[in-house]
Order: sequence, then structure tokens, then C-alpha cells
Amino acid sequence: MHIQGDMIIGRRSVRGAAGVVHAIDPARHANLEPGFGLASGEELATACALAEDAFDSYRALPLERRAAFLEAIAARILDLGPALIERAGLETGLPQARLEGERMRTVNQLRLFAKVVRDGHFLAATLDSALPERTPPRPDLRMRKIPLGPVAVFGASNFPLAFSVAGGDTASSLAAGCPVVVKAHNAHLGTSELVARAVQQAAIDCDMPEGVFSMLIGEGRTIGTALVAHPAIKAVGFTGSRQGGLALMRTAGARPEPIPVYAEMSSVNPFFLLPNALGGKAGALAQGFVDSLTLGGGQFCTNPGLVIGLEGDAFNAFSVAAAEALQQKTAGTMLTPGIHKAYVEAVEARSAVPGVQLLARGAGAGSEGPACAAQPALYGCDAATFLATPALEEEIFGPAAVLVRCRDEAELLAVSGHVEGQLTATVHATAADQALAASLLPILERKAGRILFNGFPTGVEVSHAMVHGGPFPATSDSRTTSVGATAIDRFLRPVCYQAVPAELLPEALRDDNPLGLARVVDGVLKTAE
Amino acid sequence: MHIQGDMIIGRRSVRGAAGVVHAIDPARHANLEPGFGLASGEELATACALAEDAFDSYRALPLERRAAFLEAIAARILDLGPALIERAGLETGLPQARLEGERMRTVNQLRLFAKVVRDGHFLAATLDSALPERTPPRPDLRMRKIPLGPVAVFGASNFPLAFSVAGGDTASSLAAGCPVVVKAHNAHLGTSELVARAVQQAAIDCDMPEGVFSMLIGEGRTIGTALVAHPAIKAVGFTGSRQGGLALMRTAGARPEPIPVYAEMSSVNPFFLLPNALGGKAGALAQGFVDSLTLGGGQFCTNPGLVIGLEGDAFNAFSVAAAEALQQKTAGTMLTPGIHKAYVEAVEARSAVPGVQLLARGAGAGSEGPACAAQPALYGCDAATFLATPALEEEIFGPAAVLVRCRDEAELLAVSGHVEGQLTATVHATAADQALAASLLPILERKAGRILFNGFPTGVEVSHAMVHGGPFPATSDSRTTSVGATAIDRFLRPVCYQAVPAELLPEALRDDNPLGLARVVDGVLKTAE
Repeated sequence: MHIQGDMIIGRRSVRGAAGVVHAIDPARHANLEPGFGLASGEELATACALAEDAFDSYRALPLERRAAFLEAIAARILDLGPALIERAGLETGLPQARLEGERMRTVNQLRLFAKVVRDGHFLAATLDSALPERTPPRPDLRMRKIPLGPVAVFGASNFPLAFSVAGGDTASSLAAGCPVVVKAHNAHLGTSELVARAVQQAAIDCDMPEGVFSMLIGEGRTIGTALVAHPAIKAVGFTGSRQGGLALMRTAGARPEPIPVYAEMSSVNPFFLLPNALGGKAGALAQGFVDSLTLGGGQFCTNPGLVIGLEGDAFNAFSVAAAEALQQKTAGTMLTPGIHKAYVEAVEARSAVPGVQLLARGAGAGSEGPACAAQPALYGCDAATFLATPALEEEIFGPAAVLVRCRDEAELLAVSGHVEGQLTATVHATAADQALAASLLPILERKAGRILFNGFPTGVEVSHAMVHGGPFPATSDSRTTSVGATAIDRFLRPVCYQAVPAELLPEALRDDNPLGLARVVDGVLKTAE
Repeated sequence: MHIQGDMIIGRRSVRGAAGVVHAIDPARHANLEPGFGLASGEELATACALAEDAFDSYRALPLERRAAFLEAIAARILDLGPALIERAGLETGLPQARLEGERMRTVNQLRLFAKVVRDGHFLAATLDSALPERTPPRPDLRMRKIPLGPVAVFGASNFPLAFSVAGGDTASSLAAGCPVVVKAHNAHLGTSELVARAVQQAAIDCDMPEGVFSMLIGEGRTIGTALVAHPAIKAVGFTGSRQGGLALMRTAGARPEPIPVYAEMSSVNPFFLLPNALGGKAGALAQGFVDSLTLGGGQFCTNPGLVIGLEGDAFNAFSVAAAEALQQKTAGTMLTPGIHKAYVEAVEARSAVPGVQLLARGAGAGSEGPACAAQPALYGCDAATFLATPALEEEIFGPAAVLVRCRDEAELLAVSGHVEGQLTATVHATAADQALAASLLPILERKAGRILFNGFPTGVEVSHAMVHGGPFPATSDSRTTSVGATAIDRFLRPVCYQAVPAELLPEALRDDNPLGLARVVDGVLKTAE
């Protein structure tokens, strides 16, 4: 498949008429060909109108058709073959093995949502029998969830496949029954076009309504803002910076009809070392921590940017080992020149914070190295400095972390209660730490979407129990997850059918339960009727 | 129990120090004794701090304790006896039988949530087994929902019991594990104090943490705004005007940490008469419609303010019969002088809209009648006028409705697609109308939280399948309901536990399933393990 610099608007390839933008090879800091046409307001309006037109017919399709569509997207993405991996590598600087893994994750995610759609549990089908003899009589009441409407999806720079054009937000929206209009991320425009063509082809193969999927290209925030403001759009999925997420929240809230924004924004992912966890394995833990911190150039939403432990010999040993491990890490290419610039500035600023010590830097890229290389950085401070310095809580997107030394357990608990909302919180502990861990756990439940023990937070499983979410500012909506089966819930709303004639009832709510759904009947959950 | 003009702040009765306000008897337009003290900022801060202090211990209590607390509240409300009904009648002008019914509804709602808590399905317990042999290995992942934190509840004027101090928002918040701070509605301050004392006594009886419940009194919006802005508050439940709901949404969105607002605001509840529905029963239908319109002085969120049908003899017969039925309706006392004033002005304004005909007014109150009497009003217009006049879509809170005549089915569908989001949409149809009804249904699904056939929208069952919600501006959040078992979902968020040691896992997620929950295990829903 040839990259043409086009947008995908329904069944058409459209060369954006409002200017040209190039993807950039961050390793060379050089433009990549071809140029991509930028969407005009008319092109945006066409994509939104097609999505609106497609909504009722798409949501009315049998669940099996919707599931097959998701599986067809997965197959078409695999059909793109090595060309997809090569282009994604050029555009992001990410290595081949990582991108191949991400492709498999993306494909498996689409397949998981196909299963979720077939299962139908997401419909939350609920039936209350009529009670005609009661005073007052109770009418027949049935409830199911229906999709919200067309969804605007903003891909992330750091997962050009799994959180982008056909990533988690798109997969869960389509699974819910919502058409999708993607705003492509300019960091990987060629990758985006390839994947968008795969989705378009799957839609054609599966005879989907035309507007079920479109992808627009824009520069700056103009097209993204106009997309979120468009009356056809009923929800927004976003993964990116706090600043970007907050801007979309403002736009969505200022609409005549406000709509939900699911923005996954920023997280420093606190990493707690309880007193007994370091015994005899400070070195191994430090190595694991540094590996997690620097994975993918430190450009994971869940990389651990804040380590919290009790001052003393064990923590010192961990610090020394972590510093040594970090110094061995070479500088990886960052995703974009802009991200690289922001990283360099943030690291510089952090080095200047009073009370913060620079413990180590990773190896520099050298003059032969890539253009946008991120040199890892490790800082240390005491808890008093951390608690008094809000800037230390801000995410540095890249391989930088702060080690916070607490005087005692009370101060460690104070730091845990002080941090903002997070995607993850990690605890390293042994059985001997159980009392402290038990005190810490309820605090962390209020701070994070996922709490993990004796592991590393990078690596987000796509499964049923996963939560990739968390309190603000980790996300805009702590009630949801952007990864895992329940991400579909973000794009649904309940409708109650009261005394609706049997012949007009949706299949999910018919007496004979033709979809074989688990349903709540008169308050009792019944499976396999 | 004696009404003292106090607030309830945790275990204490507190006389507000910031001024005095009186409840008003709307039938006499006269102050009722005693005066109520207004909350100071310090008193608000105390209530919020107590709620925050109570949160972790309250949410950690066994579900059985939480359920028993809800049932104790119900029992204590019943213990208030006739004094509660008398005071509520004085403050609202609502008749005894209505208030007794509402009290039973309130009590049953608390009992329903006790069942929901014991059932535990709301926890959404989900387990994914570890797959240590897989590449990469999958860790053990478990998910449950936890409560958001303290909730601010704003009672409604029109349901002094069921949507007020111990109404649906409070019951579902407490069921979720969230402490509640109520801002009492000034239209029924004495009723509020009585119910708040019942909740307080139940909390003492059940040995709940002190801050699990408080109730504040304020005038204007100062205390309500400060409550929503307080950092301890993590969600807001509100039933009231569109203006009031929008103001709370703005306040909540402008916080450093934005929080969800569940505002049930306004709805005109379109009522469709399909061509065959009127055959031979225009009179009976018109009577039923007028009864529903004027029930409780027309002060129901779900009363039908917009009737849509096809012009012709049958619709004319309906109009004439509705006008006659309306003229027989005497003017009932409205809830407050302010609501009465707004009603009178809105009716006057509607009478002046070009293209709108006044079809009938109800009987006036006369000089011997109550002070704040709402004289019902019925208007007519054609669909072209309706479609061109946004003001006709605005809710008039009170017994006023517009009959909209459509030229044909296409125009009827156009009107249905034109209206804003609604709590309910009603369809009157026979089997002969099935084709039109089938065209109408998907439109109404996108417009309303509840769709009902051949009935009247007033009367909201408190059950499992109920949805009292709907797209904006009916509510601020179409993904939720404020009535029925799933109202609890508004106050929950998911947390994932990854490789958490067995001895630290919450009961809901333990291998032996000690709570006997329905759980999703490796993607399969399992009941009664």
C-alpha cells in the first residue's frame, strides 16, 4: 500500500486542501515524504456528517456484524506487513521489535473487543416484570445501553499503533456502536494513513455504512478543536499531554451540548520501596526500575518517575545501584523534535530546583547519535523538599525520575497522600512489610487506577480487569479506563423501555432472549438463559 | 421531634451563625417558624472535613453494615410519623396522600439500595488469571469499583422527601460508600431538618463514622457553590433548574480537580399521538394526558409539556377534549412563591408567541384560593411554528403544555428529531401504527432516557431497569440515571489490583469469593460461585 498524503473520509481518499504538513524522522530531524494535505473546515464537516449519517444504521447492525468488522480491521492491519513497521519506525524512532509487539497488541485489542461485542454483557440488559396488581401498578420496564453517537479520537504520539488510528479508543468506540472520526497525530502521519486505509478497506469488505470511520489531518489545534466542537460528535477519546487534554475538556464543556472527554493525560507513577523490599536485592530492583524508567525512551504513560522510600543504608544502596544502571543507558531517539526539546528543558529546570540533587545522567548520544536523543536523568531529594515543591510532581515525559527519601513511615504515608491522581502506583514489599502496605493501600486506591505489587508499571495488559485510568490529572474521568474490556462503557448510555410492544423491543430485551445475554431480571443476575 | 432551625454537622446540631432564613407556607405566602441559621464558611469546612475523615472508614465497613445503615435511615424516617407529613405539607402545599406516597417511595428506595449493596454486583468484580508461561507473562489482575469520595447533594423543591435530604442521590451515594453533605433546599427547611435528624440518628444507631452525613443551610448560591468547590467533595448530585445545574457544572469544571456533576435539569417530555391511537378514545386519552400534566400542580420533572400529533379530526377531537378537561382543573398551590412567579411569567410570555394559540386555561384560584396557585394552561401551534421557535422547547415548570399539529408523518418525525434531550418520550400507538412507531423509536432513543408506550410519563418506578436520565439538557450526563438501582454507578470508579498479595486483596476479589459475588473471571461472567 502506497502512502499518498491523504485523509480518509468515508469511502474516499481525500487530499486535504488547506495546506501541507510533513512527518518527521526524529533520528535525523528531517522531513519525510510525502507531504500530507491538511483538512479544510468543509472536509471536517463532511467527515462528521458522514459519521452522523452512519450512526443509526451502524448501531442497528447485528452484534455479529460489528464483531466481524473489528476482526476484519485486525486482519487488514496485519496485511499491511513490514511496510507498516518500517514506516512507523522511521516516524517514531521506535525499534522494530517494539513496533511488532505493539502491532500484535493492537490486533489483539481489536479481537478482544470483538469478543466483548459478541458476549453482549456490555449492553447491561435489565428487565423488571410488570406488577399490574400492585398499588400503584408497576409497568413492564426494560433497560439496555445504546451507543452515544460519533466519537472523536485523538491518537497518542507514543503508541503509533495501539493508541492511535485503530487503537484502544477507536476499537472500543466501534465496539460500542459509535462511528469514529480520528484526528491523526502528526508525529506518525504515514503510519496513520496506512492504518486508516486498513480500517477503510475492512469497512468496505464488511459492507459497513460509509461514515463509520474517517481520519482527518490538521496542524496545531484548529482541526482538533473544530472536531470536538462539531455537533455530530458526542464523545472524545484522547491520549496526550495534560495541556492538550485540558484544552479539549474546555472545548467540550463550552459546547451548547457539553460532551464527555476521556483524556489520559499525565502521571508520574509513584514507586514505593517499603523497608524490607530492598533487603539483599537493592541492585536487582534498581536495575528493574531503571529498565522500566527508560523503556521506549521513557515515553510510556506508566513509566515510574517518582521513587519513594525510607532513608538509610538500603535506600542508599538502591540509589547508588540505580545511578550506576542509569549511566549505562544510552540515549534513545525521542518521538518528535518537540518532545525532545520539552524533555531537555524540563530536565534542565529540574536540575535547578533547590534541594534537588542530580544523581546521574545516562550516556549522551554523542555527535554520531540520533538527533532527538533523550539522555536519562535521575534526581534525589528529601520528602520535605518534595512536599514543598509542586513542580516535582509534574510529569517529565521521558526517562527522568526523582528518588524521594522519607525520614520514617509517617512521612512516606504523607508523601503518598500528597501526590496527585495517577495511572499507576507500585509497591515493593515483603510479608514483613504487610502492616505498612495495609496502611498504604487505601491511600493508593484513592490516587491511582492500578496498584501493582513487586513489579514494574510499564506494560499495560489488554484484558478484562485492566484499568488504565485514574483520578485527575492522570485522566479527565476517573470513572473509566482507556485500556481493557470495560473501556467500551465510556461510549454507552442507558435507555429504559416502558411497556414497549414486544414487536418493537430491541433483541437484547425480548422475552425469549435471542442473544443469549446475561441479564438482570427482577433484580437477579441470570446467565445463559 | 422538634424543629429547631439547625443544621446537622456530623453528630452535632449546629445553629448556623451566618444569618437567618425562613421556610415559607406557599398557600398563605407567609413565613413559617422557626427561623433557620445559615451556614458560615467555617461550618461548611467542618462538614466537608468530617466527610473526608469518614470516607476511608465508611467505605471499609462490611457491605452488610452499609446496607443496615440504609435500612435504619428508612426506619427512622418512618418513626418521624405524621409530624413529617404535616410539616412537608405546610412547606410545599402538596397534599397528605401524595406526601405519604412519597415517603413510602423514599423508604423503599433506601431499602432497594440496601439490597443492591448486599448483592454486590455494583462492585463489578473482575479477575484475570496470571499467565506466567505466556510471552510476555500476564500478571494476576483483579478489578473492583470503589467509591469516589464525599458527595454534595442538592435536593429538589418538588420532591421534599424522595429527591431531597434522604432521597435518591443520598441513598445511592451512601450505598456506593460515599459520605454525603446535603445542601438543604430552602423550600422545605423544616422537612429537611426532620429527615436529617433521622439520618443522623440512624448513623449513631449503626455506629457509623461521624462525618458520613451532614446537612447545611444556605441562602442564594454562596454555600452551594462553596460546597461544590470544596476539595473534599468528589461528585455532585443535583435535581433542579437548568440554570442551577449549569452553574454547578461550571463550578465543578473550574476546580483545580474537576469533578462529575449529575444534574437532572429540565425536560418537556414529548408525548406522541400516532394516527391510530386516537381512534374512538380521544376523550379518554385527553383526560389521562391532562391528569398527568396537572398532577402535583404540574411540578413533576416528567410531566408531558409537548404533545405531537397529525392534524385532522382525531387530533382536533383530542384538543377539544383536552381543553375541556383542563378547564375543570382547579389551580393547585405551587411549591414556592418564586416558582409561582416564574410560572405566571412564563405562561404570559408563551401566550405572546406569534403562531401560538391559547386553547384553554384551568379554573382560577379565586380570591379565597391559595396564594401561589398555578392555573393550568394549554396552547396549540403548528409544527412549522414549533420548529421555528426555540422558546417553545423550554420547560415551563408547572401545568402548561403545547399541542403541536403536524401536516404528515414526515413532519412528525422532523419534530421528534428536532427536540432537545429529554427525560422521557411517550408514544401512543396501536398495532396499526407499527411502521411509524418503528421509525420513531430510534430517534427517541437518542433523545430520551425512558421511552414509554400507551401510558403517561409521570410516575417514575424505583427499580432495576429504570432510567431517570437522558441527553443534555435533560441531564448533565446522559450516561447515568438518578433513579433506580444503577444510580449507584455514578459514585464509583474502577481500581485494578495487579499481583497484590492475597492477604491484602479486598474481599470482593479474593480467590474464595467470600462475598459470594457474581464476578467476571477470565472474561466469563460467573454467578453464585
